[in-house]
Amino acid sequence: MSGPTTQAQTYLEKHHDQFLQELQEFLRIPSVSTDPDYQGDIVRAAEWAADRLRAMGMERVEIVPTGGHPVVFAEWLAAGSDAPTVLIYGHYDVQPPEPLEDWDSPPFEPEIRSDSLYARGATDMKGQIMASFAAVEALIQSGSPSVNLKFLIEGEEEIGSPHLDPFLIDNRQRLACDLVLNPDAGGMPDPDTPSIVYSLRGGAQFRLQVFGPRQDLHSGMFGGAIHNPIHALSALIAALHDEKGRINLPDFYRDVRPLDEEEREKIARLPFGEAYYRRVAGVSTLWGEPEYTPTERIGGRPSLNVNLFEAGQSKAAIPAKATAEISFRLVPDQDPDEVHRSLRRFLQTHAPPTVRWELKYITGFPPALTSLDSPGVRAIQAALQTNFENPPVFQRVGGSIPAVLMFQETLGVDSVLTGFSLRDDNLHGPNEKINLPAWKRGMSTLLHFFTILPEHQGE
Amino acid sequence: MSGPTTQAQTYLEKHHDQFLQELQEFLRIPSVSTDPDYQGDIVRAAEWAADRLRAMGMERVEIVPTGGHPVVFAEWLAAGSDAPTVLIYGHYDVQPPEPLEDWDSPPFEPEIRSDSLYARGATDMKGQIMASFAAVEALIQSGSPSVNLKFLIEGEEEIGSPHLDPFLIDNRQRLACDLVLNPDAGGMPDPDTPSIVYSLRGGAQFRLQVFGPRQDLHSGMFGGAIHNPIHALSALIAALHDEKGRINLPDFYRDVRPLDEEEREKIARLPFGEAYYRRVAGVSTLWGEPEYTPTERIGGRPSLNVNLFEAGQSKAAIPAKATAEISFRLVPDQDPDEVHRSLRRFLQTHAPPTVRWELKYITGFPPALTSLDSPGVRAIQAALQTNFENPPVFQRVGGSIPAVLMFQETLGVDSVLTGFSLRDDNLHGPNEKINLPAWKRGMSTLLHFFTILPEHQGE
Repeated sequence: MSGPTTQAQTYLEKHHDQFLQELQEFLRIPSVSTDPDYQGDIVRAAEWAADRLRAMGMERVEIVPTGGHPVVFAEWLAAGSDAPTVLIYGHYDVQPPEPLEDWDSPPFEPEIRSDSLYARGATDMKGQIMASFAAVEALIQSGSPSVNLKFLIEGEEEIGSPHLDPFLIDNRQRLACDLVLNPDAGGMPDPDTPSIVYSLRGGAQFRLQVFGPRQDLHSGMFGGAIHNPIHALSALIAALHDEKGRINLPDFYRDVRPLDEEEREKIARLPFGEAYYRRVAGVSTLWGEPEYTPTERIGGRPSLNVNLFEAGQSKAAIPAKATAEISFRLVPDQDPDEVHRSLRRFLQTHAPPTVRWELKYITGFPPALTSLDSPGVRAIQAALQTNFENPPVFQRVGGSIPAVLMFQETLGVDSVLTGFSLRDDNLHGPNEKINLPAWKRGMSTLLHFFTILPEHQGE
Repeated sequence: MSGPTTQAQTYLEKHHDQFLQELQEFLRIPSVSTDPDYQGDIVRAAEWAADRLRAMGMERVEIVPTGGHPVVFAEWLAAGSDAPTVLIYGHYDVQPPEPLEDWDSPPFEPEIRSDSLYARGATDMKGQIMASFAAVEALIQSGSPSVNLKFLIEGEEEIGSPHLDPFLIDNRQRLACDLVLNPDAGGMPDPDTPSIVYSLRGGAQFRLQVFGPRQDLHSGMFGGAIHNPIHALSALIAALHDEKGRINLPDFYRDVRPLDEEEREKIARLPFGEAYYRRVAGVSTLWGEPEYTPTERIGGRPSLNVNLFEAGQSKAAIPAKATAEISFRLVPDQDPDEVHRSLRRFLQTHAPPTVRWELKYITGFPPALTSLDSPGVRAIQAALQTNFENPPVFQRVGGSIPAVLMFQETLGVDSVLTGFSLRDDNLHGPNEKINLPAWKRGMSTLLHFFTILPEHQGE
């Protein structure tokens, strides 16, 4: 099979320093989508991406408004209508950087230490976007169009992509493609071992508020006779799991597809044992369903995490209310709406009569499984194999990418899920980083993938 | 028995509008002691009180530095060494005003609505201080010294009076007195029924932190295999009470002095039933030990409230830590150090091996019982009886005033505990208020008390 032209490969080599500079420029824009204070930076990040797409030679570059943050769109159809069309998906928004005090260097001042570049968004996913920009630029500038390319870069992935599906519905024509390349699903075990993801967990997020007295009460004047909503909410949260780490909601596991023996054997061969997770998480003891390995718990079993608990103040009072945010990760064939009903039934049964509660369903999206024998997966597998030391591992990952599901359901196309982030890149945490050697190999891989895709597509 | 001179009474009447203006001036100073941002206002409040004491004719007025916020001291010894000396205790600091959105008018812009004046500190306790200023001014300006007077006004009551005891130790001489008048212990059932307090709960405050992973982790990448510290802390908090509202710590009730039948009968005659507490707290159902009435639970039984729970963020992550602040209210003969040991034993037994925890003992002070047949109590009883519609009720209250204990232990003097706050004055909550008719009667009562004390003292 053929690979990329020497000219294109040389282009990548020659411009590597420039790409690294540009990535740092991109990372300096604090495009946090969860916080309206960063609205101006969201716009700046979209403009930065659009400018960059124009500069590399992409056409019809446009910043398209949505009900929320804008989508950046671009296309390059030089390969002609017989060649396959790849839609590259990305998101220019990032997670909030807090807690700031845990960062060794400021989150929006990228810093290279040893083999890694540290910044919020480095691996999730501005680094991945920049790798695809580099590969596409090399392809365009070397004048070797093997595939038609489109970019869709949204600004709301970190808040659950609420306006992506309406955008897909409104723009079916210009988004038409043979497959989606989604480099937001990394999880490489080490810098030499690339990864292809075939299963993502779904999700469901809720806000649960418990209301006690009409207003904060002096704990001396009332303590002992009024139920404290912090206590009530704590008891509800405690009751959500049994002592083994199983989720206590009614019928919660009914639709969970069991892991079969073959898959469990494959997972057992991955280099992620107890010691790995203890080290990466910095804990002395793991937790969770004892009959599953940690990798099985994360990739193949649902989970529930309270990600926020907020109540009261540093004063001797019984607060009027307590708030928690609850995030589920769901696996095939769980349905987020069913989980919503189950959580509501749990609260109806378990909440005491001494408090009131309100549950708000924020967002939900089902889990995704993708096919392993499509031309796209075979092409990326070959490209990864050529550009990295070791062959790719095939993984279920515990994260969720709502976009994958929307592309499947609304456009009818599958996503090829890869990416050049390492498992220990601190996604969503302090000291997020990207491994620079893996990132560089990622660029060559994508260039290779674009070059060989037509052969796989034609088979 | 004699009462105050007509001249002194007339003085009070004539200057009432001025006192009300001055109280509003005092209330406009946001002297929040829990938050270093208000340091300048703390100083302003101390200066305001000192200026006011000078203006009314008090002598040796001084702002005395301590290890924390300063103490305001003043004396007036015109009655001579044969007359009794009363030390009036007060605090110029106030609770933080948050949550601001729950106030109907801004907390530091006093507003009169119907019979009440609304502002943070109105009842706790700038209004009480102003009532004593008015009574003392009337006494001094009418030239009728019946008692010697001293003022000690601290700035750290709302943070547990950490520097008061060292101040008492260093200033034993100038604080010498026959009794302390402490108008910070109100709790009047209604504006016509005054109150004398004979028992205060003690307290103990702790900060409990639970640590999970080294840093915030992506809930997709790790959810299901790492114990979430919010879950662990919630389970600990849930386990602190049994389903009846009893506190689950080892030996916690061992030293609790049982309420005797006579006292329970007296408490049962107070106008505070279930309906009262439901209305004042704004809840549909009360909570707590079923074998005790709400007033017994609050005045005669210990309680535990988590006043703060803080963890995580509005993002899909497993947080690195979760923090709670826990406040106990203790009754005779409980010892805060014993409670500390008991809480630590509870945590050693109940905390799971999947997290680490740290417990910090912030402050602790034992409960206080005061004598009911001292000359001071008999004099205040007579003064209250003359100036209010109904005779005073004698109460155990659920709050704590560490100063009472320190005066007892360090100076060897008892406190007379009264005050003109109503049970529903929203101490420590939003829309704190003081009932103005009760406040006015309070001034006359104190003037009356100063006038007749020598007769009771002499009996």
